Amino acid sequence: MSKTITLAHGNGGAENNELISKVFYKAFKNDILVKSEDAAVIHNGELAFSTDSFTVSPLFFNGADIGKLAICGTCNDLSMMGAKPKYLTCSVIIEEGFEIRSLEKIVRSMKEELAKNGAIVVSGDTKVVPKGSVDKIFINTTGIGEIQYKGISSNNITEDDLILVSRDIGAHGATIFAAREGMDLETSLKSDCTSLYPQVEALINAGIKITALRDATRGGVSAVLNEWAKQSNICIEVEEDKIPICDEVKGICEMLGFEAMSLANEGTFVLAIPKEDAQKAIEVLHTFEEAQNASVIGKVTQQYEQKVILYSPWGTKRFLDTPTGELLPRIC
Amino acid sequence: MSKTITLAHGNGGAENNELISKVFYKAFKNDILVKSEDAAVIHNGELAFSTDSFTVSPLFFNGADIGKLAICGTCNDLSMMGAKPKYLTCSVIIEEGFEIRSLEKIVRSMKEELAKNGAIVVSGDTKVVPKGSVDKIFINTTGIGEIQYKGISSNNITEDDLILVSRDIGAHGATIFAAREGMDLETSLKSDCTSLYPQVEALINAGIKITALRDATRGGVSAVLNEWAKQSNICIEVEEDKIPICDEVKGICEMLGFEAMSLANEGTFVLAIPKEDAQKAIEVLHTFEEAQNASVIGKVTQQYEQKVILYSPWGTKRFLDTPTGELLPRIC
Repeated sequence: MSKTITLAHGNGGAENNELISKVFYKAFKNDILVKSEDAAVIHNGELAFSTDSFTVSPLFFNGADIGKLAICGTCNDLSMMGAKPKYLTCSVIIEEGFEIRSLEKIVRSMKEELAKNGAIVVSGDTKVVPKGSVDKIFINTTGIGEIQYKGISSNNITEDDLILVSRDIGAHGATIFAAREGMDLETSLKSDCTSLYPQVEALINAGIKITALRDATRGGVSAVLNEWAKQSNICIEVEEDKIPICDEVKGICEMLGFEAMSLANEGTFVLAIPKEDAQKAIEVLHTFEEAQNASVIGKVTQQYEQKVILYSPWGTKRFLDTPTGELLPRIC
Repeated sequence: MSKTITLAHGNGGAENNELISKVFYKAFKNDILVKSEDAAVIHNGELAFSTDSFTVSPLFFNGADIGKLAICGTCNDLSMMGAKPKYLTCSVIIEEGFEIRSLEKIVRSMKEELAKNGAIVVSGDTKVVPKGSVDKIFINTTGIGEIQYKGISSNNITEDDLILVSRDIGAHGATIFAAREGMDLETSLKSDCTSLYPQVEALINAGIKITALRDATRGGVSAVLNEWAKQSNICIEVEEDKIPICDEVKGICEMLGFEAMSLANEGTFVLAIPKEDAQKAIEVLHTFEEAQNASVIGKVTQQYEQKVILYSPWGTKRFLDTPTGELLPRIC
């Protein structure tokens, strides 16, 4: 590991994993932390507990703002453990001189998104720092959810499961990129930022068996699939033309050489569902406007150890690796 | 309220309270948040839940560093609700270029302080932002504690209670000030930063009745007493010469015109204890090295509505108001 922190250490990919394991896990190690996925499972398996800090730039962008993102991000982490988001804390660090009107707009977005989750903010903290100590505003949200479906774990995926995504991928990353480049007015592209609990709840209520869920934030679908391949000691084989990608995201990727599979999402999740329930899961997801493109994208095999393989429509194949380097800092 | 955020909005005093109530409480209002003191009480009164972000500068100072502070701050908030700190999340925002050795030192401090609370970190988040987007490192910790003593509330203080402080006041604020001014090598002054749960646990185990507890962080003892006077609709009368203040803090206050009562603390708490148990509480506190100066400092009356009165040894009296303005940004 290098002697100083680099932007790649926050990419949600390989360097990020190395920093977390060599610095944080090494010091804090305990059974719950080691098993913790999107959220930790605590209190006799009753509650999920998860934290996220949001540093996104710009603060306002097509489809969302830092406030909506801060609620979706933490509530989605809880949802991915089968938990209903219930109690959140909200801690803000604000730069001196920040407009109170902008703060109010952000807080209104948070309020609206909380309602969609049926969650409330029960405690908070407000810090103000001198100009230059922080860029505008950073928000931390930490949440507790009540687990409705037990046993979701990325350690348990087997050849009996299929791999699904809940919608077209990469919209959040592409939107933030477009906003920074001033391209956001010329495109209908918008962030996928959404609260996922309603979709998870519908899957649970439909009686669908769930092996693993993960929202594909930093590092995108690539990071999730590679982590799952390692944790469950499996090979995940994906058919490239089954992966839904909208035209705007395709365009940005082609123009700039990005890989849509590595772009961040904020309302798109990957599912490992037993084969017999996969079609029903797709049908349930399709009842949601945001999940019209939900698709089965791959299967689980033992062809290679802990690898993700991407098959092209022309019959060629390649390994899809955990993303490295820093594509876009301050994406969330 | 002004149109932009000022440093005073983060002072733990009057302007801070205004921002919280007019922006955050207004949007997020719910019964738990309104009743929330140092921590929210959730899950049928079983659990306390609290968050804090730490932006202190410098990162390392006499008596502690940002890591120790980040654990003490959140665990102490839980302790003040009679809760045993149990599960914490840790979310860091790091500036590109920050030394990994410094990060490891901070994380080691966190680990040591967690052990003193019997708490563990179960989930985390790591963000890296480009140079200039944050000053070095900010840390959020959010904690869940198991409530051991129910009913602690700053709404319930009456004339049957006495007001105590657990030790000499103002050491943290004075230490940070001295460190910034380069005075820290010439003084034996060090921050009071300490985990308070052991002291709270000893009070509970001794069977002492507790009306209210509050650690006197930003805004110091002044902010706590004024908040209590308002919330319990009482007058708090304090004898100035009963307030323990060490010589170094007195010196810095005299030299610079600070009021020790408004200086931040990070391991000093104010107690409202029924008269019949106050002496026993002092005896329990005196068994702790950090609380050798624990003292009864005042009583509760109805002389004025929601006021704090300070009596000098010469028989004069004055009102002690909620602190205003910004004494020291980035104190915690």
